[in-house]
Amino acid sequence: MSDAPQQIVTVYAVFASDEEAARIARILIDERLTACVNILGPCRSLYRWDGRIEDATEVAALFKTAAEQAEALIGRLAELHSYDLPAAAIWPISAATPGYAKWVLDETRPS
Amino acid sequence: MSDAPQQIVTVYAVFASDEEAARIARILIDERLTACVNILGPCRSLYRWDGRIEDATEVAALFKTAAEQAEALIGRLAELHSYDLPAAAIWPISAATPGYAKWVLDETRPS
Amino acid sequence: MSDAPQQIVTVYAVFASDEEAARIARILIDERLTACVNILGPCRSLYRWDGRIEDATEVAALFKTAAEQAEALIGRLAELHSYDLPAAAIWPISAATPGYAKWVLDETRPS
Repeated sequence: MSDAPQQIVTVYAVFASDEEAARIARILIDERLTACVNILGPCRSLYRWDGRIEDATEVAALFKTAAEQAEALIGRLAELHSYDLPAAAIWPISAATPGYAKWVLDETRPS
Repeated sequence: MSDAPQQIVTVYAVFASDEEAARIARILIDERLTACVNILGPCRSLYRWDGRIEDATEVAALFKTAAEQAEALIGRLAELHSYDLPAAAIWPISAATPGYAKWVLDETRPS
Repeated sequence: MSDAPQQIVTVYAVFASDEEAARIARILIDERLTACVNILGPCRSLYRWDGRIEDATEVAALFKTAAEQAEALIGRLAELHSYDLPAAAIWPISAATPGYAKWVLDETRPS
């Protein structure tokens, strides 16, 4: 049986640049709000803003953390982010590889 | 507390090309079925088809929308898609950054 | 109504290289533990290891499978993976495009 179902989650967020994503990732790892971050690289973002459809380049990233830390993570991420309205969403995880969930929980336990 | 838990979702889909992903994204934004789309770029897709494992290039994209609009979104996406059997899946979101969920809900409310 | 809500899931995992991701993907498709795999390409991974924040390149991939097969999939993936502690997480799917969920279920039914 895989361990710790629903005890860890993934947080998906987009950033203005790779540099911003890595800078914020380091702070959140340092503050034990996330165990690891996969910066997926540049993505093409389309969205309506002021009545026009914008076509911009952003950088997508995935954060793995304890379910209990997820709200603090997205709150802190929003503080550090360059946007007025940063986009971060919490995706539930139903199970994970044996030992991995434990590692994420250990890495995000307040020291 | 982050706002609007479970009121918004992510839809993951793959397309034949960046051009197709962007074309369909624009239509779905225009029709207020999605608030924003992150086209993640080319991905290498492996799958069995007629007994052989195919190794093709597709383009992955993430759509953010209201939970209530998600079924209409994937239905319309399937109509617009070049494949006979397009792959689109709805991933639940348990919470999002303050204000972001409200923006997604506002952008996908029928005008 | 989209078909087979909650009967299929997505599994997210990261690998040491594109070659490893594709090799493991082929075995898991062959063994009918997954229907298709989208290898998203290189990602920049940051994580704490032995007290330092590592900044490495990995490859992210998404596996689509039956909910019933997901635990067997992540167990087998862990066996095949080059890491001692591979990271694979099961993301629930609440609904999918008509016919797609059926195809995934058919492709992952033990032959």
